[in-house]
Amino acid sequence: MGWTVVRNQLDEESLLVNESLFALGNGYLGVRGNFEEGYAPGINSIRGTYINAFHDEVPIEQAEKLHAFPEVSEKLVNIIDAQTIMICFDDEWFSLFDGDILDYKREINMDEGYSERRIRWRSPQGKTVRLHFRRLVSFRTKELFLQWIDIYPESACRNIRVISYLDGDVTNAADPDDPRVASGHTKRTNTTDVFQDGPNHTVVNRTFETRLETAASVRIRTSRTPDVYSCEYHGEAVVEDMTFREEEHIRVSKWTVYTDTYRHGPDVKSEARTIHNELADVSIADVLTGQREYLHGFWQSADIQVEGDANLQTGIRFNLFQLLQSVGKEPASNISAKGLSGEGYEGHYFWDTEIYMFPVFLMTEPSIAKNLLEHRYSLLPAAKYRAKEVGHEQGALFPWRTIKGRECSGFFPAGTAQYHISADIAYSFVQYYFATNDMAFMSEYGAEILVETARLWIDTGHEKDGQFRIDDVTGPDEYTCIINNNFYTNAMARFNLRWAVKSLALVQDYSQEAFDRLVMRLGIEPEEIFAFQRAADRMYLPYDPERDIHAQDDTFLDKDRWNLAATPKEKFPLLLHYHPLTLYRYQVCKQADTVLAHFLLDDLADETTMRKTYEYYEAVTTHDSSLSYCVFSIMAARLGDQEKALRYFSETARLDLDNTHGNTKDGLHMANMGGTWSALVYGFAGMRMSESGLSFRPSLPKSWTSLTFHIRYHGRIIQLYIDHDAAEYTLVHGEPITVTHRAAPIKLADGTAVRAVL
Amino acid sequence: MGWTVVRNQLDEESLLVNESLFALGNGYLGVRGNFEEGYAPGINSIRGTYINAFHDEVPIEQAEKLHAFPEVSEKLVNIIDAQTIMICFDDEWFSLFDGDILDYKREINMDEGYSERRIRWRSPQGKTVRLHFRRLVSFRTKELFLQWIDIYPESACRNIRVISYLDGDVTNAADPDDPRVASGHTKRTNTTDVFQDGPNHTVVNRTFETRLETAASVRIRTSRTPDVYSCEYHGEAVVEDMTFREEEHIRVSKWTVYTDTYRHGPDVKSEARTIHNELADVSIADVLTGQREYLHGFWQSADIQVEGDANLQTGIRFNLFQLLQSVGKEPASNISAKGLSGEGYEGHYFWDTEIYMFPVFLMTEPSIAKNLLEHRYSLLPAAKYRAKEVGHEQGALFPWRTIKGRECSGFFPAGTAQYHISADIAYSFVQYYFATNDMAFMSEYGAEILVETARLWIDTGHEKDGQFRIDDVTGPDEYTCIINNNFYTNAMARFNLRWAVKSLALVQDYSQEAFDRLVMRLGIEPEEIFAFQRAADRMYLPYDPERDIHAQDDTFLDKDRWNLAATPKEKFPLLLHYHPLTLYRYQVCKQADTVLAHFLLDDLADETTMRKTYEYYEAVTTHDSSLSYCVFSIMAARLGDQEKALRYFSETARLDLDNTHGNTKDGLHMANMGGTWSALVYGFAGMRMSESGLSFRPSLPKSWTSLTFHIRYHGRIIQLYIDHDAAEYTLVHGEPITVTHRAAPIKLADGTAVRAVL
Repeated sequence: MGWTVVRNQLDEESLLVNESLFALGNGYLGVRGNFEEGYAPGINSIRGTYINAFHDEVPIEQAEKLHAFPEVSEKLVNIIDAQTIMICFDDEWFSLFDGDILDYKREINMDEGYSERRIRWRSPQGKTVRLHFRRLVSFRTKELFLQWIDIYPESACRNIRVISYLDGDVTNAADPDDPRVASGHTKRTNTTDVFQDGPNHTVVNRTFETRLETAASVRIRTSRTPDVYSCEYHGEAVVEDMTFREEEHIRVSKWTVYTDTYRHGPDVKSEARTIHNELADVSIADVLTGQREYLHGFWQSADIQVEGDANLQTGIRFNLFQLLQSVGKEPASNISAKGLSGEGYEGHYFWDTEIYMFPVFLMTEPSIAKNLLEHRYSLLPAAKYRAKEVGHEQGALFPWRTIKGRECSGFFPAGTAQYHISADIAYSFVQYYFATNDMAFMSEYGAEILVETARLWIDTGHEKDGQFRIDDVTGPDEYTCIINNNFYTNAMARFNLRWAVKSLALVQDYSQEAFDRLVMRLGIEPEEIFAFQRAADRMYLPYDPERDIHAQDDTFLDKDRWNLAATPKEKFPLLLHYHPLTLYRYQVCKQADTVLAHFLLDDLADETTMRKTYEYYEAVTTHDSSLSYCVFSIMAARLGDQEKALRYFSETARLDLDNTHGNTKDGLHMANMGGTWSALVYGFAGMRMSESGLSFRPSLPKSWTSLTFHIRYHGRIIQLYIDHDAAEYTLVHGEPITVTHRAAPIKLADGTAVRAVL
Repeated sequence: MGWTVVRNQLDEESLLVNESLFALGNGYLGVRGNFEEGYAPGINSIRGTYINAFHDEVPIEQAEKLHAFPEVSEKLVNIIDAQTIMICFDDEWFSLFDGDILDYKREINMDEGYSERRIRWRSPQGKTVRLHFRRLVSFRTKELFLQWIDIYPESACRNIRVISYLDGDVTNAADPDDPRVASGHTKRTNTTDVFQDGPNHTVVNRTFETRLETAASVRIRTSRTPDVYSCEYHGEAVVEDMTFREEEHIRVSKWTVYTDTYRHGPDVKSEARTIHNELADVSIADVLTGQREYLHGFWQSADIQVEGDANLQTGIRFNLFQLLQSVGKEPASNISAKGLSGEGYEGHYFWDTEIYMFPVFLMTEPSIAKNLLEHRYSLLPAAKYRAKEVGHEQGALFPWRTIKGRECSGFFPAGTAQYHISADIAYSFVQYYFATNDMAFMSEYGAEILVETARLWIDTGHEKDGQFRIDDVTGPDEYTCIINNNFYTNAMARFNLRWAVKSLALVQDYSQEAFDRLVMRLGIEPEEIFAFQRAADRMYLPYDPERDIHAQDDTFLDKDRWNLAATPKEKFPLLLHYHPLTLYRYQVCKQADTVLAHFLLDDLADETTMRKTYEYYEAVTTHDSSLSYCVFSIMAARLGDQEKALRYFSETARLDLDNTHGNTKDGLHMANMGGTWSALVYGFAGMRMSESGLSFRPSLPKSWTSLTFHIRYHGRIIQLYIDHDAAEYTLVHGEPITVTHRAAPIKLADGTAVRAVL
């Protein structure tokens, strides 16, 4: 139960949304869920295939170009399209927008890892046929996009013609009216080669500016040799045309292999051939088996079962499945805001990775989490350069949005100004240490990240009246920009500074040699360590004693409150209807800001302050950002309101499935998908991690019967089963370990379930 | 003495600067000081001719287009070039970059109203000639640009060839690296017609988007009929080619008449012909006489004489002359940031008009000042529309930069956010009332502007704890953007609100009928008037009791101070070397902000607060804006430091003449030029105006012997002569009047000088 998502609508809007929902990928390659045979004329579609991090450089237009405004953006490029396959029955082309649909089911199978369309169709002239389209993007062979179609004519049919296209003439999508979507620069690649190589037909495209190449190489297999076959090269496209005579069942499979410069070096063509050769003896069944096995492994550690709400269960699995499909699994890539499911935010990596998606992988598949950190680490030189460019004398200022390390944000008040991303990245390295205890990694990467980001805070902030203050930054809430002492930023910077100091001490304990090397390489002086500690100790965290809440920044609470009750529904999201200045002028939040700090840093406030802060900001938050619900869900659960937590959680679990933000067509909201997991594990299970270990405060909403999941921690696998009476902890794998259940230690060993009452 | 400016340099940089310094204009038409014969290959020149407000619409590119970001800018267009005249002696073309310059003098005559170049030149082959180029833009016939050249061959010369061009193939200048200059969209007109009409040759250009037309019609006159004459039309250009044989002196004059759609209606061609016909019997001497008479009138009321510093005297006159040349004198236009002398800031009108330039005209030629107000009033509907668009429910939000009323600022933190422009405009209407007592104008225009801008403040601000607060605006200082309760903005808004109430009372006193009409038209309810008064009375003006200074905004004083002493010289202006966020993070001001409020609103602070405020901000101000020096000069004089006032004043008086900001090539700094006048009249003479009359607190720097000027006030002309012992007040024209001299009333009548000791 709950392993499939079915979507049978055929109206334009649903189709566009479904292109994102049915996107298939493996972290390297992503293909949107477009129909092989295309659409009726006039129906809009965003046809896309992407390789993670495969990008071009495009100019950023600025009305007034001030110093250090980025001039170039990195843009994920739509690559060679292999999706198209047309089918003709005698003289009638199959189309879902023509003739009669007698039966139709479109489905994505999250345990098997493929999607399918089963169709029974009557042509305008009355022929009846059955068609079964299936496709997958392989987890085992990351370069492989496989489609196969079973064709069963039910009426007499003399000729069944199947035409396969491989088309290098592709463009990116654009929407000049939505700041969340690219506004131009749609054509970013040229086809540089089209050739045949035995049974393979290959198209090579090259980006305009980055000169990256990608090859798409197609091999068609058919259940029997076609009666007529021709192959023509039309400019940038390969067209293979097959006709089968009087057959009861034909299967055509299309094996497309994608390679690119980043992963396969300069000779993308012969690498594609090599992969095809390796696949020569592999059957569809073999691929499906591999897919199933891979996913079985994933679900074993990542699946979360919620008894009591089938719809939510589907949403949970769908979101986890999409995260897995989108996350980069080798050092060249990360996980972008829309994954590989669409072009929203141009394939950029944001803080979404560290705060919203990284934890899922950290606790279920730490090797993927480690790859995300290594990728960020590879951007450190660019972040140090950026800090200098902006005017800092030291430190690393990570770009708000990027692919290869360049700041690609064109609107600095809600871009470069969000300095917190540097602390968020630092935070994720510490979380990795908490979860894995991996001191080798801390010595090699973590400590350096922590020191370079700590240096940024020292250079950005200043001490006044015994307080360390950070002026003119933007916190997570983009409806309040460029303010002083954003609570979230300051709290995260404090954690960053503290852990810069702690990490050095840990490295020294771990290996004096590693420590000496680090100190030498980074030029760390003892005074600097004292300065980190001093800034952390004196960090100013705005607090309003009257209300007993943390203030979002120095002046937020002095502003007028936006009248949310009087704002008509169609004016949301506010950012599409009000000038930013108008939004800045009010107490109104796009998303969790102070409340997020209270989640991430559990020790910032006592229970009362936490509760009052939550209540205060909840009343002024629009959740116009998809990053908001999950945080409010987690904190509602933390504060004991499981029913409210459930309401927020439902919004995260179904956000894309129900297209509640209205822009799922541009791609899935990956951070929110990560938030679904977080709301379950950090929220209802109440998990927290720190130096002193792992703790839980489980508690379920009434309507659920139980919640079950696994996490990986310090090399162990621990299973949690929670119902209304108790939590059951089971050590599935690894050495004995003690965790904390509502302040009480629980010793786990031997796979025996330990029951702890709630 | 002090009526000419001489500039003989011929290096590229000086030439570019001199193109702006030698710009001639009359408020309608402006022509940069380009050489008729052109330059050596590779020498950069910005060749330009402009008609005030004659603009095209160009797209504003935004990296991320948020709601109500302007999409279109209005851009002053470079129009048909009539400057070019080439001269050939036998086979040798005259050029200052070829052969030998035996004698050269380039001069602008500010009392005669023309510029000239006197040249003695030896050609590469050894021929010697004298050339005398003169040019003017007529004040009497605003459409006329007149050039005349006297040619005196000193060596034997068989053929003197003169070629005149009229060229419609023109483009605007661009500099993508300087935010103060346009970055693109250089070609904005097409030539739609080229034709001969009797002795006139005419080129008509039309802008791409606004479809405005301008005609340039040339008539050449020569001292005798050329021996050979031909006229050819080369695409968009008219080329008139004349050869004179063996002559001792030839004079060629070129009469170019410009017309445009705004001023001459749709038939720009026949209007140009009509004007040519009217000029047919007018000689150069006649034009020169008209020019001299017009300027005589101007200097009579506007000239300021400073005895004791000839260099400053020249600077003062030059700046006044350029103001006169740049200011629009009919309702279609205003005065742009660079006047008509260059393309910097794209011909846009800013607050510069109201705060820096308007006072000069108000006190010397009120009819021009009135025109400036009428022009602003014509933009009121656009400002009301803009307020709605940004998210206000009522009021008028004037654009930060505009030509026809549209917000043309592409960078809102230092653009749209500068809400104070609406209060600045309101302020200027009140100043006009103070200076003229013109209640008809107040009833018709002033009160409406005051009410609509007051409504903006009500909608922007909010009351909290008994204080009226205005959040998220930017004050004059562009190194600190988007802050709460900018002192300048709040103080000006208070004045605005108070005068909205007062103006209504005044109108009612003046005419009940006018009042009733106004109340009806604007839908004013009594409660609204109370709301204005209440907001004004409760306006929050940030003050730091410890330092006894006004705070620039809510958090300015909490920031770290920029280390100006440690900043290398080449890092100024800071805006070209630091990201805005870095600048925002420090106490560092581009220009006067709080100090400007203390100048404009004399009653905001007592002497001590004023002084301490001045000293505090002086220490953190870079004067990277050309609007800064004059304010510091005025306030230094106000606080009794005349020597410091002189130092600042010298920077204003010579800013363009000495190109101290390094960008005079892009046009003259008109606001600073107005500031020169203000520094003399408001600064050294200590003039202030209010409801209760006109007052002075004169005091000179040591090195000056005396200061003399006139002002117009309530229909009178008053002369002031100030030396180190006393001030002499003389009523030159008008009914007796009482003014205040250092708190003492002085009654003026009959042209008798009244001497008052200092």
